[in-house]
Amino acid sequence: MEPDQLGLYIKDYADFPKKGILFKDIFPIFSEPHIFASLINKMTQVESFKEAEAILAIDSRGFLFGSAMALLSSKPLIVARKPGKLPGELIEKSYQLEYGNNSLSIQKDALNKFQSYTIVDDLLATGGTVDCVAKMIIDFEKRITGLNVVAELVELEGRKKFPFRVDSQIRY
Amino acid sequence: MEPDQLGLYIKDYADFPKKGILFKDIFPIFSEPHIFASLINKMTQVESFKEAEAILAIDSRGFLFGSAMALLSSKPLIVARKPGKLPGELIEKSYQLEYGNNSLSIQKDALNKFQSYTIVDDLLATGGTVDCVAKMIIDFEKRITGLNVVAELVELEGRKKFPFRVDSQIRY
Repeated sequence: MEPDQLGLYIKDYADFPKKGILFKDIFPIFSEPHIFASLINKMTQVESFKEAEAILAIDSRGFLFGSAMALLSSKPLIVARKPGKLPGELIEKSYQLEYGNNSLSIQKDALNKFQSYTIVDDLLATGGTVDCVAKMIIDFEKRITGLNVVAELVELEGRKKFPFRVDSQIRY
Repeated sequence: MEPDQLGLYIKDYADFPKKGILFKDIFPIFSEPHIFASLINKMTQVESFKEAEAILAIDSRGFLFGSAMALLSSKPLIVARKPGKLPGELIEKSYQLEYGNNSLSIQKDALNKFQSYTIVDDLLATGGTVDCVAKMIIDFEKRITGLNVVAELVELEGRKKFPFRVDSQIRY
């Protein structure tokens, strides 16, 4: 798959969800099984992905990519979710995102199971969400091999926040 | 995979997210790649799944199963999401769920593309969420081949709401 072909299935929406935000809609990818399969295959070929013991998928568009990558690679997957969504003992952390504030949580039991993680999400913008997840993992004395995203908004320089490798399949 | 084995990876939490609700936590399934792969394989063998042209996955635990099923079966996937999450022209409908009220939306462009859908989610309880999604699909003059869930709370009789087949991999 050429990056240009992937780009045909990511649709821009201006001023969504708030004025001034250019939303990248990745859902059309899932309507085209061969594009989706090719993308998941490429994302699991990334070196930092192969190196990780487990996947950390971010709620909730990250679930759509992380889960398929988990199936294809036979790697375990754990999740970071929004407040009130996960039961059990949690690690929680708040962060600023492109449009507002939020917090994320991870189940301690899950994070305890594996030693190294590759973080999976749909889009890297300013990197606030990923930074929050990364800090939780590192504070818990686990290792991050890299960040794996579908699309990256290069001008926002999100990747500069991270002391680990960042791989994106298409850059804007 | 025996149903009993799957049950080992679904953990009960009493009074979550609200008092009186027994929450079935399906996340431990994803920590065990062979359990996850076996489950996804079984869910894609269901007759009503095979018959459908596309998958409709429900936000957001349904994403984790629907996406892997889409990859394994090479079927396209579309999504029903909570308010404010999907851009573009939408169909929207509100519903009552086990603990509160909510609404769901589907992108019209996506729903237009395929003629028949299998609905995928993690859990069938009272069936309010699925009923909402099903009504949107049927009102849009598309066909539902069935509902495919991981777990079903049989006593709540959610399946009685639906004029289509319901398959669950474990029943409580």
